[in-house]
Amino acid sequence: MESLENSTLLNRGIADFIEKDKIIKKIQAGEKLRIKFGIDPTGCDLTLGHAVALRKLKQFQDAGHQIVLLFGTFTAQIGDPTGKTQTRKILTKDEVLKNAKTYLEQAGKILDVSKIEVVYNGDWLEQLSFAEVLNIAGTFTVAQMLERDMFQDRIKNNQEINLVEFLYPLMQGYDSVPIKADLEIGGTDQLFNLHCGRPIQKKFGQEPQAVMTVPLLVGTDGLDKMSKSLGNYVAINDTANDMFGKIMSIPDTAMEQYFELATDEDLVLVRKKIAENPRDAKVLLAKKIIEFYHDQKTSEKAEKIFIQKFVKKEIPDEMPLFKVTEDSIGILNLISSVCNFSESNSAARRLIKDGIVRWNGQQIIDVNTEIKIDSEAKILQVGKKKFARISR
Amino acid sequence: MESLENSTLLNRGIADFIEKDKIIKKIQAGEKLRIKFGIDPTGCDLTLGHAVALRKLKQFQDAGHQIVLLFGTFTAQIGDPTGKTQTRKILTKDEVLKNAKTYLEQAGKILDVSKIEVVYNGDWLEQLSFAEVLNIAGTFTVAQMLERDMFQDRIKNNQEINLVEFLYPLMQGYDSVPIKADLEIGGTDQLFNLHCGRPIQKKFGQEPQAVMTVPLLVGTDGLDKMSKSLGNYVAINDTANDMFGKIMSIPDTAMEQYFELATDEDLVLVRKKIAENPRDAKVLLAKKIIEFYHDQKTSEKAEKIFIQKFVKKEIPDEMPLFKVTEDSIGILNLISSVCNFSESNSAARRLIKDGIVRWNGQQIIDVNTEIKIDSEAKILQVGKKKFARISR
Repeated sequence: MESLENSTLLNRGIADFIEKDKIIKKIQAGEKLRIKFGIDPTGCDLTLGHAVALRKLKQFQDAGHQIVLLFGTFTAQIGDPTGKTQTRKILTKDEVLKNAKTYLEQAGKILDVSKIEVVYNGDWLEQLSFAEVLNIAGTFTVAQMLERDMFQDRIKNNQEINLVEFLYPLMQGYDSVPIKADLEIGGTDQLFNLHCGRPIQKKFGQEPQAVMTVPLLVGTDGLDKMSKSLGNYVAINDTANDMFGKIMSIPDTAMEQYFELATDEDLVLVRKKIAENPRDAKVLLAKKIIEFYHDQKTSEKAEKIFIQKFVKKEIPDEMPLFKVTEDSIGILNLISSVCNFSESNSAARRLIKDGIVRWNGQQIIDVNTEIKIDSEAKILQVGKKKFARISR
Repeated sequence: MESLENSTLLNRGIADFIEKDKIIKKIQAGEKLRIKFGIDPTGCDLTLGHAVALRKLKQFQDAGHQIVLLFGTFTAQIGDPTGKTQTRKILTKDEVLKNAKTYLEQAGKILDVSKIEVVYNGDWLEQLSFAEVLNIAGTFTVAQMLERDMFQDRIKNNQEINLVEFLYPLMQGYDSVPIKADLEIGGTDQLFNLHCGRPIQKKFGQEPQAVMTVPLLVGTDGLDKMSKSLGNYVAINDTANDMFGKIMSIPDTAMEQYFELATDEDLVLVRKKIAENPRDAKVLLAKKIIEFYHDQKTSEKAEKIFIQKFVKKEIPDEMPLFKVTEDSIGILNLISSVCNFSESNSAARRLIKDGIVRWNGQQIIDVNTEIKIDSEAKILQVGKKKFARISR
């Protein structure tokens, strides 16, 4: 049996974990943990990026712990004093509550919403007096605030930091007090803010919460973090067909992270599959994700539609079929000897280097790639005109 | 007639004056200015140091303007989060109001208390919500706060700055809004805080206040600023005799500042008197200050008591009397030729350098000092044993 120390719950898809030992002890003592997760209710379609933390919360929920979703209604109603972040606008209470409702509908695809506790920080932050704010502020030094990466970057780039921005972490930190959080979960970019809860809880006589961050999922471009503004996202409300197309477009290098953070697949097996056949692995990834947000039948249908579309657009209806008797064959041999698409292995090598060789739609980069041959025919493509079906 | 531009009101005893032009225009337009002066009601005996600003306020009061004394009751009830300034302790509301009363009793020696408006910032700061605090904080950048001298010094000396200390200037600045201050007066060490009122007033739709600082009066040691903790102070509640003794102990170099900041004497005449006879000038200074806080009769009595005391303690009853026919005589000649207290002028020079030559109790430092000879006998003292009376 998996030990708690090495469990998926406390190890998979985690970037930082402050006071893991304390959490292990509490779980072993049978405590029902109160797990805080803060949401900025500015309204958005949840993406696979947002889902990373929600999936971790789901694991805790399944293990019997109490998830507390905190909507930052107070923050959303304040807006950005710098006037620079265009995306940050002041929201009315109605807008905020509407956004929270939309969020919960989407989160319901991952979490059992009926079991979570939903709280709004406006309920207590609106009540705080100036004296209480000063009492909370007294927990920190200016140097501690300036240590924050974001502020260091701004100072380096000669960008202003508004004094209000020094107070935001106080709000988020204080939220842990009325929530009585044992553990707070957030993205790695929230590490500083999550930390702020600890000394404030201590000041109010509570045990400081543990802190867990989850990695930021890379976008479908494989370059930047997934975000709506960059357009490199998969929304959890996307249609199965959209999901399939977007996931098939991610670079191979991003695949393992997607498997780790967006599926429950065993990572040892996944690594093997990616090494053996990246394209098949990617199809598996797309199908697993679609199964989670839709269902197995829809997932299979999406695969078929994707393949048809791919076939229609890129690939001629008619092409020669070559039979290969071996289980697998080197890509150079396949190009030059089997299909006669080049005059020699070294000419085939150049074609691969030119980036114009594809096996079943997947670009081949490594000249030593060993191609697995199935009974089902797959397509070798060299440039825009040379196509062949290959099967056993 | 003195023009407003060059008036005592707007020129004497002033360190910084931000927007002097605006104040001149308002006074010329017949406006009754609202002049804010903030007091930390931690309770103390007022000294001549505190009186510098109060005397400036009195000048404005005499010119028909409205003085608003602001007691920082809110601040006093919060205390010092750093826990390092031992003098700063949290006060109860009762203590604060008692201290304010004591303050007003003392200030009544300078200002017409019946005409001033007394306000307590707890009345509005206690009502501020977190959202309003954030709104005020949004007026400033972190860099603006860090520019403050005090913070720069702390950073240089690797000393902590508590986050609360970044919020104190907000309170003091916001106070100008309910007060509707046209001008705020304070010590030079308050320049940063006084400035903070300006952008906050602007944010709340008011014209930013002008700012005037008064110099910090040096203590009786002539070295550090006057303060109770250093023991170098004259309290305005001191007895006339104590005042006389303390003021006679200040070094000559500090005399002009005392005349400027603690009396109404004409400074051109004062400079002349100091140059002619520092001891007489110092007696005049002591008498003028005592006249202000007590009355003329008490002042004269204090002088007599001081002289008697001085004579009794330091000076023998019997001593030779030397007559000098000139109006004045060089100190070296007086010592060596008239009194024969040294063998030569160069020996007399050494005695002066040794710091043991006194004329009527006043130490002589300059070997070129010209001694004025009156018909009334005065005392030359060299060391502890050689005394002589000198007159015309």
